[in-house]
Amino acid sequence: MINPKVGIIMGSDSDLPIMGAAAEILQKLEIPFETTIVSAHRTPDRLYDYSNKAIDRGIEVIIAGAGGAAHLPGMVASITTLPVIGVPIKTKSLGGVDSLYSIVQMPPGVPVAAVAINGGKNAGILAAQILSIKYPEISKRLRTYKDNLKDMVLEKAAKLEAIGHQKYLLEMEE
Amino acid sequence: MINPKVGIIMGSDSDLPIMGAAAEILQKLEIPFETTIVSAHRTPDRLYDYSNKAIDRGIEVIIAGAGGAAHLPGMVASITTLPVIGVPIKTKSLGGVDSLYSIVQMPPGVPVAAVAINGGKNAGILAAQILSIKYPEISKRLRTYKDNLKDMVLEKAAKLEAIGHQKYLLEMEE
Amino acid sequence: MINPKVGIIMGSDSDLPIMGAAAEILQKLEIPFETTIVSAHRTPDRLYDYSNKAIDRGIEVIIAGAGGAAHLPGMVASITTLPVIGVPIKTKSLGGVDSLYSIVQMPPGVPVAAVAINGGKNAGILAAQILSIKYPEISKRLRTYKDNLKDMVLEKAAKLEAIGHQKYLLEMEE
Amino acid sequence: MINPKVGIIMGSDSDLPIMGAAAEILQKLEIPFETTIVSAHRTPDRLYDYSNKAIDRGIEVIIAGAGGAAHLPGMVASITTLPVIGVPIKTKSLGGVDSLYSIVQMPPGVPVAAVAINGGKNAGILAAQILSIKYPEISKRLRTYKDNLKDMVLEKAAKLEAIGHQKYLLEMEE
Amino acid sequence: MINPKVGIIMGSDSDLPIMGAAAEILQKLEIPFETTIVSAHRTPDRLYDYSNKAIDRGIEVIIAGAGGAAHLPGMVASITTLPVIGVPIKTKSLGGVDSLYSIVQMPPGVPVAAVAINGGKNAGILAAQILSIKYPEISKRLRTYKDNLKDMVLEKAAKLEAIGHQKYLLEMEE
Amino acid sequence: MINPKVGIIMGSDSDLPIMGAAAEILQKLEIPFETTIVSAHRTPDRLYDYSNKAIDRGIEVIIAGAGGAAHLPGMVASITTLPVIGVPIKTKSLGGVDSLYSIVQMPPGVPVAAVAINGGKNAGILAAQILSIKYPEISKRLRTYKDNLKDMVLEKAAKLEAIGHQKYLLEMEE
Amino acid sequence: MINPKVGIIMGSDSDLPIMGAAAEILQKLEIPFETTIVSAHRTPDRLYDYSNKAIDRGIEVIIAGAGGAAHLPGMVASITTLPVIGVPIKTKSLGGVDSLYSIVQMPPGVPVAAVAINGGKNAGILAAQILSIKYPEISKRLRTYKDNLKDMVLEKAAKLEAIGHQKYLLEMEE
Amino acid sequence: MINPKVGIIMGSDSDLPIMGAAAEILQKLEIPFETTIVSAHRTPDRLYDYSNKAIDRGIEVIIAGAGGAAHLPGMVASITTLPVIGVPIKTKSLGGVDSLYSIVQMPPGVPVAAVAINGGKNAGILAAQILSIKYPEISKRLRTYKDNLKDMVLEKAAKLEAIGHQKYLLEMEE
Repeated sequence: MINPKVGIIMGSDSDLPIMGAAAEILQKLEIPFETTIVSAHRTPDRLYDYSNKAIDRGIEVIIAGAGGAAHLPGMVASITTLPVIGVPIKTKSLGGVDSLYSIVQMPPGVPVAAVAINGGKNAGILAAQILSIKYPEISKRLRTYKDNLKDMVLEKAAKLEAIGHQKYLLEMEE
Repeated sequence: MINPKVGIIMGSDSDLPIMGAAAEILQKLEIPFETTIVSAHRTPDRLYDYSNKAIDRGIEVIIAGAGGAAHLPGMVASITTLPVIGVPIKTKSLGGVDSLYSIVQMPPGVPVAAVAINGGKNAGILAAQILSIKYPEISKRLRTYKDNLKDMVLEKAAKLEAIGHQKYLLEMEE
Repeated sequence: MINPKVGIIMGSDSDLPIMGAAAEILQKLEIPFETTIVSAHRTPDRLYDYSNKAIDRGIEVIIAGAGGAAHLPGMVASITTLPVIGVPIKTKSLGGVDSLYSIVQMPPGVPVAAVAINGGKNAGILAAQILSIKYPEISKRLRTYKDNLKDMVLEKAAKLEAIGHQKYLLEMEE
Repeated sequence: MINPKVGIIMGSDSDLPIMGAAAEILQKLEIPFETTIVSAHRTPDRLYDYSNKAIDRGIEVIIAGAGGAAHLPGMVASITTLPVIGVPIKTKSLGGVDSLYSIVQMPPGVPVAAVAINGGKNAGILAAQILSIKYPEISKRLRTYKDNLKDMVLEKAAKLEAIGHQKYLLEMEE
Repeated sequence: MINPKVGIIMGSDSDLPIMGAAAEILQKLEIPFETTIVSAHRTPDRLYDYSNKAIDRGIEVIIAGAGGAAHLPGMVASITTLPVIGVPIKTKSLGGVDSLYSIVQMPPGVPVAAVAINGGKNAGILAAQILSIKYPEISKRLRTYKDNLKDMVLEKAAKLEAIGHQKYLLEMEE
Repeated sequence: MINPKVGIIMGSDSDLPIMGAAAEILQKLEIPFETTIVSAHRTPDRLYDYSNKAIDRGIEVIIAGAGGAAHLPGMVASITTLPVIGVPIKTKSLGGVDSLYSIVQMPPGVPVAAVAINGGKNAGILAAQILSIKYPEISKRLRTYKDNLKDMVLEKAAKLEAIGHQKYLLEMEE
Repeated sequence: MINPKVGIIMGSDSDLPIMGAAAEILQKLEIPFETTIVSAHRTPDRLYDYSNKAIDRGIEVIIAGAGGAAHLPGMVASITTLPVIGVPIKTKSLGGVDSLYSIVQMPPGVPVAAVAINGGKNAGILAAQILSIKYPEISKRLRTYKDNLKDMVLEKAAKLEAIGHQKYLLEMEE
Repeated sequence: MINPKVGIIMGSDSDLPIMGAAAEILQKLEIPFETTIVSAHRTPDRLYDYSNKAIDRGIEVIIAGAGGAAHLPGMVASITTLPVIGVPIKTKSLGGVDSLYSIVQMPPGVPVAAVAINGGKNAGILAAQILSIKYPEISKRLRTYKDNLKDMVLEKAAKLEAIGHQKYLLEMEE
């Protein structure tokens, strides 16, 4: 696994605080990726080009984040046969329900895999899960990641049981 | 005005009962038009091609209807500088609110002119209004159309005032 | 093109921060415009007067912004045959979904061209697109504007690819 | 009370099945009324005329029903100082939530009294309640109406308690 | 008019910033009123008592504000035959759409007159409009109020036309 | 357990097809119950009376169904200290989201236990679960009920695995 | 009543500010409880374990808070026959309507008792109401609590009536 | 590829008309699959068992359909590291927006890949896309499928252009 396996694209650099979380978790899981900006509405040619060449460039999963009339994930999916994960970005007026509907309500024949509003991190994990069916070592790392999640919850649970909700809340506020 | 001035496109022929109303009103207003199918998700190349050549083919306004993750109007608008009118098609699960958000919530720089859910007829009238600033005869026809609308209401109002709501309702049910 | 071609009206001066963006982009595209306040609910006579005289005053497109029970765009459209662009202003309680529905859900016969919630800038661009079918020079300016949008995205994309998401995010925060 | 006291208006005769219920209950409560069609979007002049002359014609309350971008009640309220009751008509795509928002979300200074979606009957009762503060005999009739409502519920309650839910359901299905 | 004519009640004193606007406008229109707290859920007996005695105490219109599962206006309306105006208070999680539905969607037979979310001021004006059909002097004051609203808009419109949107925005920011 | 333990009330007999399901499951679980009609808006006195006497009459849980501005469950909860289960009835215009918000969004101090829209059956089961902490035999019956639910699913799962989705679908259509 | 009677669990310690309110009111009502963290998605085994052992550990009511795709309350209810109260936690993008739907829309056979969004306190009171049918002393404490709620409202009402809305508002702002 | 690669599970056999479409498209793409029923709420043990053993049984992608408080996809994803595709089933009261939110709004760490409401077919295609990165022959079949989709649209477009919208509509109605 030397070349980028996951292409992380976004409609605008204002989406980077959310989409950066996808990059972070992929880095942690040691999965090669690239990040760039592809705007469905401002750079339609680039959208075609990126989507058409993705397979040949060694990309295996595409993560696309967009907000509002979020066309990027669906248009990429209309061109490539690679799995496309869509991240609906929260919007100021509608809270991201517009982004979610635009991404998830794709017509029969052209699916997009939608994750939660602002779910950049989960998009990264889903990409890793998809890759894990081909690369067994990723499967192991995901199992470790899942176990760590569990341990963190168990640790907090033990603390809450030990010191009670009032002390716990006080410590949180500090 | 010999060539088509208005291009009516839709994502699927299942949209035709709604989009046909745009054609009907344009016919009535004697405005040349063409109707065809362009699917953003199933024929992305055709979408590019249609949008890129529209101006040179003499198209002056594009009406695009689509449902669900309705990307067609916005993607056409991303390529051409012509005004694009979007018709959100009603959907079975969400009533068309998904289509509406996908069409209207375009990012700064790339507008779509959204009309009501299933508003095929109004899309045709809006196209005529846009053309009317260049072709004065359309302006006159629109004025006549508006006057006719008024007269139909006045006629119904006179009838309701004359026979009362009960008889009117009985006649409506017949 | 000496006289105002675009009339920008709004229901209240509290809408000016949004509607001013329509004025800004028209200024940039060198399209004459005027801005004023016309309240459907507080100045109904003025609404009639403005709408009735618009054509004779040389107005070719009207942009109307309003929030809540946003009646202004629809009522203007009920009187004039000019194309009317409606800008739904974001509201505190409902995020502007009330404004959007009030503007876009017009009955058959009387369309309004709705843009995104708070989409003042896009209303200006849409007005320019409408005018461009009559004034070829505007068409050229719009093509240049579109090309500039593309270049700005490509520049940011190149930067993100060059320095990576972490450095890019750090620079954004500065 | 000889002249019409309540003016029942609607945007389209398709609203009559709902608005007729307002007429029915006013008839039952022996309150003079008139019904007619006034379309905000198709007959704006008539809207002005009706609203401006209402007080002098002896109208004391106006009930206005409209669907979608339901501007009728709000525009009437912008012209007259009479109380205006708005009836949001159910719409096919959005269930009437568009009508409700358009009617109820009026700006400070110009209220409309909104009732439930398709609430024609309640609009009639509310008009009667408003008139009752001036005409004491209406107050008595409303008290009687309220008592009858109660008695009908008590009768059904007694029956349900007597025969049980299974028999009651069987009788309902017959 | 010596005794209170309008009863302004609210479910909690946290509603007072909104409901106080109803009191302010009534004061301005010289209409006697009273303000108090009546909680449908915390003081059900008081709710009954207040509603039952309202007519005999000389109350002619009741304004009731409530948020969330806003039962106060509807329960008052279930007891008295007076017109009841409901003010849906904005809520933190749902923006007041819960309050609005709870207030406006009353069953046939028991209407509430709903105004906009947080529409305290409009509730006061609506109460005045209702009273105006009995007290002609209120009708005159409302006409004056409406004229003042108009003049304020005209003044702002003139200023905007005179100094342009950029200077106007700068002055607003100051 | 001789006297009624669960009081099933509803705002209108039109709610009986949904609320009857609560009665059916209680009958199946051998839990005494009564069904009657109590309208918050049409019989407010009866609402007070029923709620005030419930404890003394041996009622231990109240199930209240209502639609639209569904005040019944919340008003009962404002009077009694018994647990009150609210069933939001589906409405024609808003699908029951109005009923749900009116029932679930109760203010601090006065809870209602909301179940799903049209969830009459689940209201009955929840009542049984509440009673089960006092009456151990109900706990056993609920465990049996839960096991039966599981067995029915397992049976269907085995059948689907055995005959495949195509045959299964054909049998469903018969 | 020595052992914990109420189990308060939450999906994440970020829910503690809301769920702590359930603990506070139970403490005030002198009802034993425990608080801990059980994540449906991060600790599924713990979820099973907790739910399976709850009855034997003397738990009689479970309060479960969760946000977003809030599976915790429903999954606990799928395993135990104890009554489960679900607290939908407010979310940043959708205001908690996602949490509410995920918690309340349970399928026939497996109810959850939903309270208001962020309704931690009411979850505690509902738990107390459920326990009160078995433990009469809790019933008394709830009656006292209800009376105190009433007294607090009456006190504020008296103050508002005495000093008027303007002074009251001024004092609130201090 | 002999063993099942895709596990299609659903919460109830009433979901089979939707989930069968996933099976159909997989069959067409010659991808081994299995279909069965796993109810998160009625068979929680089976849910654990199925999810825990999936990898060892050779399952590589899981498609899970569920409606309402649709916990199945998210709970499967909480246990396995395989990619899980969630299909929100349309519901009678809320149109499936409840199912969609419950499936897509998963917390950080545990993603589900949501497709459109009732998007059974797209779930199958997405599963194929995921498998295609490991099995190149599936990639080819998907390309052929995409080309066929395109050809079907082009054929319809040619027909519509040839016979016009009126004849086309007539033929559709036949």
